[in-house]
This record gives sequence, C-alpha cells and structure tokens, in this order.
Amino acid sequence: IVGIVVGGQSDLRVMNAAAEMLRQFQVPYELTLVSPHRTPHRLVDYAESARKRGLRVIIAGGGGAAHLPGMMAAFTTLPVIGVPINVATSIGGLDSILSMLQMPTGVPVATVALDNASNAAVLAVQMLALSNARLADAMEKYRAALRDKVMRTVDELRKGGLDDI
Amino acid sequence: IVGIVVGGQSDLRVMNAAAEMLRQFQVPYELTLVSPHRTPHRLVDYAESARKRGLRVIIAGGGGAAHLPGMMAAFTTLPVIGVPINVATSIGGLDSILSMLQMPTGVPVATVALDNASNAAVLAVQMLALSNARLADAMEKYRAALRDKVMRTVDELRKGGLDDI
Amino acid sequence: IVGIVVGGQSDLRVMNAAAEMLRQFQVPYELTLVSPHRTPHRLVDYAESARKRGLRVIIAGGGGAAHLPGMMAAFTTLPVIGVPINVATSIGGLDSILSMLQMPTGVPVATVALDNASNAAVLAVQMLALSNARLADAMEKYRAALRDKVMRTVDELRKGGLDDI
Amino acid sequence: IVGIVVGGQSDLRVMNAAAEMLRQFQVPYELTLVSPHRTPHRLVDYAESARKRGLRVIIAGGGGAAHLPGMMAAFTTLPVIGVPINVATSIGGLDSILSMLQMPTGVPVATVALDNASNAAVLAVQMLALSNARLADAMEKYRAALRDKVMRTVDELRKGGLDDI
Amino acid sequence: IVGIVVGGQSDLRVMNAAAEMLRQFQVPYELTLVSPHRTPHRLVDYAESARKRGLRVIIAGGGGAAHLPGMMAAFTTLPVIGVPINVATSIGGLDSILSMLQMPTGVPVATVALDNASNAAVLAVQMLALSNARLADAMEKYRAALRDKVMRTVDELRKGGLDDI
Amino acid sequence: IVGIVVGGQSDLRVMNAAAEMLRQFQVPYELTLVSPHRTPHRLVDYAESARKRGLRVIIAGGGGAAHLPGMMAAFTTLPVIGVPINVATSIGGLDSILSMLQMPTGVPVATVALDNASNAAVLAVQMLALSNARLADAMEKYRAALRDKVMRTVDELRKGGLDDI
Amino acid sequence: IVGIVVGGQSDLRVMNAAAEMLRQFQVPYELTLVSPHRTPHRLVDYAESARKRGLRVIIAGGGGAAHLPGMMAAFTTLPVIGVPINVATSIGGLDSILSMLQMPTGVPVATVALDNASNAAVLAVQMLALSNARLADAMEKYRAALRDKVMRTVDELRKGGLDDI
Amino acid sequence: IVGIVVGGQSDLRVMNAAAEMLRQFQVPYELTLVSPHRTPHRLVDYAESARKRGLRVIIAGGGGAAHLPGMMAAFTTLPVIGVPINVATSIGGLDSILSMLQMPTGVPVATVALDNASNAAVLAVQMLALSNARLADAMEKYRAALRDKVMRTVDELRKGGLDDI
Repeated sequence: IVGIVVGGQSDLRVMNAAAEMLRQFQVPYELTLVSPHRTPHRLVDYAESARKRGLRVIIAGGGGAAHLPGMMAAFTTLPVIGVPINVATSIGGLDSILSMLQMPTGVPVATVALDNASNAAVLAVQMLALSNARLADAMEKYRAALRDKVMRTVDELRKGGLDDI
Repeated sequence: IVGIVVGGQSDLRVMNAAAEMLRQFQVPYELTLVSPHRTPHRLVDYAESARKRGLRVIIAGGGGAAHLPGMMAAFTTLPVIGVPINVATSIGGLDSILSMLQMPTGVPVATVALDNASNAAVLAVQMLALSNARLADAMEKYRAALRDKVMRTVDELRKGGLDDI
Repeated sequence: IVGIVVGGQSDLRVMNAAAEMLRQFQVPYELTLVSPHRTPHRLVDYAESARKRGLRVIIAGGGGAAHLPGMMAAFTTLPVIGVPINVATSIGGLDSILSMLQMPTGVPVATVALDNASNAAVLAVQMLALSNARLADAMEKYRAALRDKVMRTVDELRKGGLDDI
Repeated sequence: IVGIVVGGQSDLRVMNAAAEMLRQFQVPYELTLVSPHRTPHRLVDYAESARKRGLRVIIAGGGGAAHLPGMMAAFTTLPVIGVPINVATSIGGLDSILSMLQMPTGVPVATVALDNASNAAVLAVQMLALSNARLADAMEKYRAALRDKVMRTVDELRKGGLDDI
Repeated sequence: IVGIVVGGQSDLRVMNAAAEMLRQFQVPYELTLVSPHRTPHRLVDYAESARKRGLRVIIAGGGGAAHLPGMMAAFTTLPVIGVPINVATSIGGLDSILSMLQMPTGVPVATVALDNASNAAVLAVQMLALSNARLADAMEKYRAALRDKVMRTVDELRKGGLDDI
Repeated sequence: IVGIVVGGQSDLRVMNAAAEMLRQFQVPYELTLVSPHRTPHRLVDYAESARKRGLRVIIAGGGGAAHLPGMMAAFTTLPVIGVPINVATSIGGLDSILSMLQMPTGVPVATVALDNASNAAVLAVQMLALSNARLADAMEKYRAALRDKVMRTVDELRKGGLDDI
Repeated sequence: IVGIVVGGQSDLRVMNAAAEMLRQFQVPYELTLVSPHRTPHRLVDYAESARKRGLRVIIAGGGGAAHLPGMMAAFTTLPVIGVPINVATSIGGLDSILSMLQMPTGVPVATVALDNASNAAVLAVQMLALSNARLADAMEKYRAALRDKVMRTVDELRKGGLDDI
Repeated sequence: IVGIVVGGQSDLRVMNAAAEMLRQFQVPYELTLVSPHRTPHRLVDYAESARKRGLRVIIAGGGGAAHLPGMMAAFTTLPVIGVPINVATSIGGLDSILSMLQMPTGVPVATVALDNASNAAVLAVQMLALSNARLADAMEKYRAALRDKVMRTVDELRKGGLDDI
C-alpha cells in the first residue's frame, strides 16, 4: 500500500526506519531504489504505475539536490511524503530540505523533519487511517504508547533512577 | 471536512488561498483563528474535538515561532499540514519553516512550501482522495488543467505573443 | 521555586547543568520531563499548576521544533526561560533557537545561548534575586568568583604555566 | 524601575514599543541612549549605577554587532533583556540575534524575538511581578485581553465580517 | 543550437537575458517553457529529443525547488547549465541555488550565479567555442568590450565626470 | 586537454577524483597546484597560456574564499569549472560555494556540487563531447553503467540481499 | 596615500563614503575602478605598483563573488581593507562577506561591516596614525565628536525633544 | 608592540598561532586573557592603557557573542584586529564572525577568517610595516617563502612524489 523509495543506496540507513514503522502498524509496503538522476525512466514508470499497482502513498527520501519526492509528485497524484536526508556533502541538511519543501503550486510534497523517516511512515499511516478504522485505532494506541513511555521516564526521574545520564 | 486554522489575523492574507483551493475542489472546510500562544485552550479544544466534529485533515499556518501546526498534531491523530508564513519579523522564513518541519518522532507535521497555502489544500485533497473517487478524479483534472495552462503559454511563446515580458 | 523541564530524555545531558547551577545557589528546583508533543496534556497541567505549586520561574529546554518553552509560556504568566539544544538532527541549532526565540507579542520566552542551561539558571536566579537579598548577594559573589578564576588564569599565563595548551 | 537603553537613535523606532508597553502596565521606566562603542564609559556608568538608581531590570536593544545588552550584563547583576533589531545593513537580523543570544556562562542575556521590544517589556513585567501582586494580576488581565481580542476576531470571521482581507 | 527552458512563465523576466546574450553572439537558440512538475512528460520529451533536434547545450532556469536543470540533465548527456532564480517565496535564493547545484555524481548541472541568465549564455558560448573558431574569437572580443567599458568608466572617474552617483 | 588546478595541497584529497574520472574517459589532463593568493603570477601565467598549451577546459577547486576558479576565468576565455571544497575552517561550505558561484556578468564559473570533483570531470567531458564523437559515446555508456549499477542494487534489494545495511 | 578601488561602477554608491571620511581626516586618496574579472591585468598593475606610487593602504569594495580585496592582497604586501557590498543579487550579503573574509593564511583581508565603507576609511586612518601624530590626534577628536553627538541626542531625549520618532 | 588578548582560556588553542607568527617576524607581543563579560573592568583598563603601555595594534579573539574585539575598539583608537573562533556551541562560526564584523560606523574591527589567528598577526605586521622598513622587508620575504613552498609542492606533484595523498 505504501511505496518507500530511496534515491541512493546509502539513504537506506535512514529510510529503513520508515519500513520498520510501517511493519509496526502492519501496513504493507514495498521498499526500493529509484535514482531520479541515474534511472529517471524508472522514476517515471514507478510514479505512473504506482496507483495501478495498488500504492496509495509514496514516501521518498533523498539528500543534496533531492529531486526524488518532487518528481514522483509530478508523475502521480498520490500523496508524496518527502524525507530530507543529511548526507556527507550536504549543506547542513538545508539543501535536502529546501529542494523538496519549496515545490510550486499544484504539486506539493509533504515534507517531514530531517532524517526522520519514521515520521514519514506515521504521516502515511495517518493518511491511510482516514478510511481505515483499524489504523485510526492503531494510531491512537501508538500515541498512547509514546505517552506512556514518557511517563515511565518521568517516574524514573522522580525516583532518581536516571543516574547514568 | 478540512479545518483551516491561522495563528494570527494577518496570516489570513496567505491562508485564504487554501480556502479558495478547497472551494475549487468542492471540499467543505471551516476557516478560523486559533492563536497557540494567546488562546492555547482553544487550540486544545479545537484539536481534541476535530475528529468528532467531522474534520479529517487540519491545515495550520503560522509565522515566526510557528507552534500551531505542531501543537495541533500533539492533540489529535488527524493528519496536520503546516504552512510556514514569511511574516515581517521573520528570519527570511526559516524560523517558520524549521519550527513546524523539525517535529519529533511520532508527531509529524506535513510541511509545504513557504507561504504556499494552496499546496496545503492540494495535499489535503490528495489525502481525502485516497477514499473518495470524485476527488481522485478531480485531482487528475486539476493537474491536467495545470498542464494545459502551461501548454497554452508554450503556444503563446511560440507565436511570439509574450511581448510584454 | 524553579521548574526545570526537558522535552526529551536525551535533553537531560544538557539540562542537568541548570540543576547543578541552582544547587550551587541553593535554589530549590524540580526537574522533570514534559514532552510537548507526546504528553501535551501534561504540559498544560504543568504550566497551569506551576504558580499554585509554588514555582516562580520555569526553565524549559528542547531541540528541533522546540515548542516546550513557548507553549509553557502560553499556559502560564510566570517567566519562562528557553534553552535551545543542538540535537543530532538539528539544522546547526538554528531550528531550536528560532522556534523558541521568535515568539509573538504578549508571550515572550527569555531565550539563552545554545546548549547553555547554566545560563538559564543564572538568569532564573537573577529574576528571583529581585526580591531576595541573599540571592542578590550570592549572585555578586558568583560573579566575583568568575572574575577571580579568570585572574588566576591570567596569572598562570604570566608565569608561563600554561604549557599544556 | 526599568531602564530601556538603545544603542543608536534609529533604534528608538523599535524600542519605543517597550516604553509604551511599560506605561500600559504603569511600570516606571527611563529611556535613554547608550552607545556601547561611541560612549563606552557611559555604558559602564549606566550599568554600574543601575541598581543604586533603583533600576531592577534593564532592556537593551541593538542591531548588527549588538554588544549593548551583553556588556550591560557584564557590568551589573540585574537581569538584562536583549532586543535584537533588524537594521538596514543587518544580515537578515541574524547578526543582531546571535551577538546577544550567544553569551558565555555566567552572564546571560534574556533574548526576545527580532524587533519585538513589546515582549521585552512583557518579560520585564513578568520578572517584577514575581514580587508584586498588582503586576501579577495586571499580567493575567493583559493575557485575558489578548485572548479576548483573538476571540472577537474569531467572531468576526464567523460572521464573515472580515471582507477586507 | 542552445535550448533555453524556463520552469515558469514568471522566470522569463530573468531568463530573457540569456536569449539576448545569445543573439549578441549570433548563436541560434530556442526559448520555451517546460514545467518540471506540471508538464513532466514534456520535460522527458524535451531532454530526450534535444540532441536529435540539434541542441548542443541546454540552459534551464528555475526558482524554489528548482528541479528543471537537474532533471533535464538526467534525461540527456548534453551539458546543462542551471540558472537559480530568486522568486518571491524563495529563501533568499538559497533554495534555488542548492536544489540545482548539489547534484549527485554522474549528472552535473553547471550552475551560475543567482538570476544571472546572461552568464549561462556566456558559458554556453564558451562551450560551443571549443569547436567553433568564430565563437572563440567573438568571446575574446566580448571580453575586450567588457574591459573597454570598464576603462571608459575609469576615464570618466578620472575626469570627475561621474557626478551623478 | 583538461587542466585540473587546486588552490592548496590539501585540496588534492578532493580533486584527485576529477583526475580519476578523466582517466576513466581517457581524456588527457594535467594536475597541478596554483595558489591564487600565494602564487598569483603563476595563476596569471597558467590561465593566459592555457589555450596555447592545448587546454580546452579548466577545472579549479578551492575552499574558503575560493578565488581560484573565478580568477582563472578572468584571465582566459576557456570554460572554467569550479569545485567548492568544504575545508576545516569553512562556514559549512557556503563560503566556498558562494565565492565561486556568484560571479559577475561576462565571466561565469560553471560551479558543481560541494566536494564533487568527479562531477567537474563529467561536465568537462560533456563539453569536450560536443565535438568528439568518441566521448559522446563514452558518456552515454557511462550513464548506462550508472543506471545498471542502480538496477543491480534494486535486484539485491528485491532478493533481500542487502542485509548488512 | 590611500587607494580606494571598487569592483564595479554601482559600488560607488557605497564606496564614496570611504572617500568622504578620508577627506574629513585630510588623508589624500585616489578612487578608481578595478574590475577583478573584467580588467584582471589592471588589478595586477594596480596592486604591484601601489607601493611605488606612494599608496600605503588599499580599500577595496565588492559584492557577490568579491575577489577584488583578496586578489589585491595577493599582489601586494600593503594592508588591504575589504568592504563587502550587499548588491541586488547577493545572498543577503553573505557571499560578499565570506568571499573576502575567509582568506588563507599569509594573505589576510581586513574585512569590515557590510556596506560600511566609512569604517574602512576609519581603519585606514588608524593604520596610518600609527606613524602620524596628527592623524592619531584627529582620530581621538573624531571619537570625541561621535561621543558628543550621542550625548546631544541623550540630552534631546531627556528634554523629550525627539517627538518626531 | 602587539597585544594579543583572548576572551577565554580555551581560545588559546587558536590564538597561540598569532603569537607564533609574531615571533617569526620578531615582533614583541604580550598575550593575555581578558574576558569581556567576566572581567569587564580589566577590558576597560587594558584598552585604555594600551597606547601608554606601548601597544600599537591589538589582536582579539573570541567565540559566540564575541564582544572582545569590538569593546576593545570602543575604549581605544588603536587598530583592533578580530579573530572569530568556532567554539563548540557556535552556530557554525557565524555568531563569532558577525558579532565582531558588523561594527557601527566610527569603531571598526579588522576581522579576519574564522580561526585564522595567524592572519591577524600577518595583518598586524603589515600595519606596523607601514613605518618599519625591516618589517616591510620581512613581509616580502615571508610572502616569497610562501610562494617557494607552493612551488616546491608543484615540483613534487610534477615528479609524482605526492603518492601518499
């Protein structure tokens, strides 16, 4: 249901977190490599066939001049979520962020935080949950679990149990 | 179905474009003012009641330390789209962008381009279209119309008809 | 008297310095975790009960889209001091700084230097010292001690005793 | 009780808002010009005599290499609030912000948003309100007034009365 | 011989300077509109047919998330020159610059200065001049003309003739 | 045919990649050191004699105030490609990028991505290929090889063979 | 004694202030145009003959990729003062600042504030005053005059005479 | 003759290079610590007595809100050279650079490259050389030595002797 695409093999380091999060929500996904500049026809094919192949949301990550999410969005009307990646030769991550965020009117990319592929998956689940009661419920439970985890740390802090910080 | 919220009255200048775009897609919306820092309880109420009141997507715009989208997202599991606004005392728009983009894991904000409320609406329609065939079709037509408009300009350029540039 | 709140557990690394400085001034404090996005109701409760619980100043630290100080300030009229934290996925610390500094009129956050939780505590003591002669005196002594420490280094430099640099 | 100092005459354009806000809270203040680089001895005298002259908080504004707040803070232990000002030759306001925000440990400047002298005054009132019940009450009323103003705009929006936007 | 493509109609304001410069060098060119996000197939067609249609260099301009030059380069092996454009909602031009400059290995974009379409044309002529003696000669003359123009201004300055500055 | 020049010895770490890429394309090159600020006359001599010595493209890399590409371009009309280098005392690479990108009209530098000397070589080959069928063919093959390499990774991903990420 | 050089005619708008300041100190100067990229040989000649022609300090201003001060410094051992200029297509002035500030070891440029040609002249006078008692005295008087001007404004503020702000 | 002052002990790591360079030129210097914020009176004393004690140039280094060079310049009319230092909590060095570069008219700081204390010393020598033939000569020799060192590397490159890169 969700297509996760990375612009380069090294982006898998960051983007695997999206897959992991989707598995946690039991959302089927495919994860593959589509280089916008080295395999541009593959990008066209991927985006144009996405809907037919049953994809409903696309998560695309990239660093530097990160054209993958924006060009995916140009070839499909499915929602595209962009994950800017802070690669070694990036300008502090700003190049990745701005080259997917600053899309022109009509073709948005839903951009999430730098290197935060998990959040791209959460956002994808939120979109799918609009018409899927199980996912809507699972999202509430996920949030409750996050809350509980914070509260457990609060308790540990109260008991002075965080000595190792 | 879509809630458009602005952090300050002056943000309406930018955010009205979201309303206009939703009207074009015949998507019902409400547009109101929720100041995260001056009416924080209103923010809690708005976000917590959003789902019950039938909202499915929230579009929130703001400038400077733009906490509205992120805090909306904290109080609801509906997808929240953020529109960074370049206000007069902004640091080139970067403050608005970064304070809604850089959300922690579990609570994403789908951030779009600076001042581009239209794209927030397009993204909202794309989300809704996942379970609404009419909107999916309308989105395809919208894209075709954008394409046609470009092609008309191409024709005018070909004919030399763009003398006044 | 002073409430130190961190947005995430990893922020304790930086924020413990505030607690240490307050201990040095013998100012009572509490230190806890309040995630603005994962435990937003806890944030509301914390801020709204702060005055009643005897807090007079709140020090809040966070990284990325750092909404904790600003939202604390929205729910209380106590002075709130913000400590921007340079987390791993931060845009050079600028996101943290701008998302707490650029607050709208009426709801300021007293922002201090990046990662400088000690200075948040010093500022808190300065505020409390406005009506506490002991603290005013202690602050003068603290400054004198800083001065003396510099002068000892000056002496060592004069004697050529800083060979290991 | 509050000393408002500006680094240059042109800064009055921005800093007068601090005076206006203090008048609204009926907090006595003095407003004067202290150029850190053209009248540095005046800076020393001002800061060192501040406490004796009855000042309890200092608000200092400046643009570019804005040393006024930080050097004020070096010569007094009173809390100093800094207002970064976006002057004509500023680097987008970043120079003003960073040169007052990034103070070393022991000598903080409570920095507020770019050009937001009003917030410096609000923060000063919050500090004074720690030992002044009238001001604490006035601050609550001020916040309520801000809230009410937002709610009136909400009502106007509801009635469609904001045609002129 | 040279294809000038703009991503949006408003970019013509900047990009016409490239056409003007090429006319000055009597280099044939075509100027048209190719929106990478609204007419992505047109982009593919344009780039893939470029060599066959006799183009030897492509000049592509764009603002914001400026994907046009990079995607052109992905679909052709002709040299592509990118002109970053500082549009109204740009982040100081940095988004345009970084999204065309920071291309991955194998698919470069020869990026020139912000809004400097003239220089894209000069660079294109330099490339063509590698195998065209007339252009090589014309380029030398152009440079000499630039030099002479500076020297005329030097003379006017010497004579005090620049009173109106 | 191609002159690769580095501004400092430490830049060889980055710039050797240009030489390696040119060897791969069997394009003759020379690689040497020309410090624009320590050996400025050598810069003049190098640039002015470049054409006569048979050079057709110059690749120049540098960090910080990187004047080498721009000044090379001032003394020759051959195309000059600039490689910004992120040295230890660089401002995130921005100084290197901007000091070669932002050239005035008439004297462009074809700037490529930060630290991406390989792409400077690819761009040089693209320029030479305009009048060299062997290189044009080799460039197509290089691109095909890049494409094939991506596709092999795609296959490995499909087979789950990328366990070690 | 002081050579003021501008990189382009439009820079005179800013750089005339240097001439005006030098006249005020009765320091002889010459003001001319030396384009580093359009008249590079003139740059070499200017810098190499500077000492012989009696120049003792060079003030050089420029915008964008501002190579003039740094290359002047490469061809002479006289002190060179750089004035970064915020031209229309500048990246907020940062390009001009960084391309003259970030010089390599051995060849410094004494960089002053953005667009502040007056300060370049003041710095030049300070250098000359090291061996010129008249100038040392004049500099003290200039500073006193600055101080007096501030104090007059202080008086006017005290009298409430600054109504027009 | 030259006073080298550091704002904090950790800055010695960078600023020792200035002392080393001055020793190379046999220029007498003193090196000491003056914290602008912890020992502000020492700053006043240092700057005001500088001329009387025989100092002719002051080199001041600092990081973050680096007020030392600018405040030194406020209390003396001797030329002050600023060395911005990239400390651990710096915003990429930009805070240090801007808070010493962006000085107001009348009180310049001659700013050199980030962390480049050597260049501050070279600039100081250039200033002193204006009235010292030995130093003028030594500076020429220093430049020649830099040139020779580059040429030796050029030779090694030619011989292929740089295998270890």
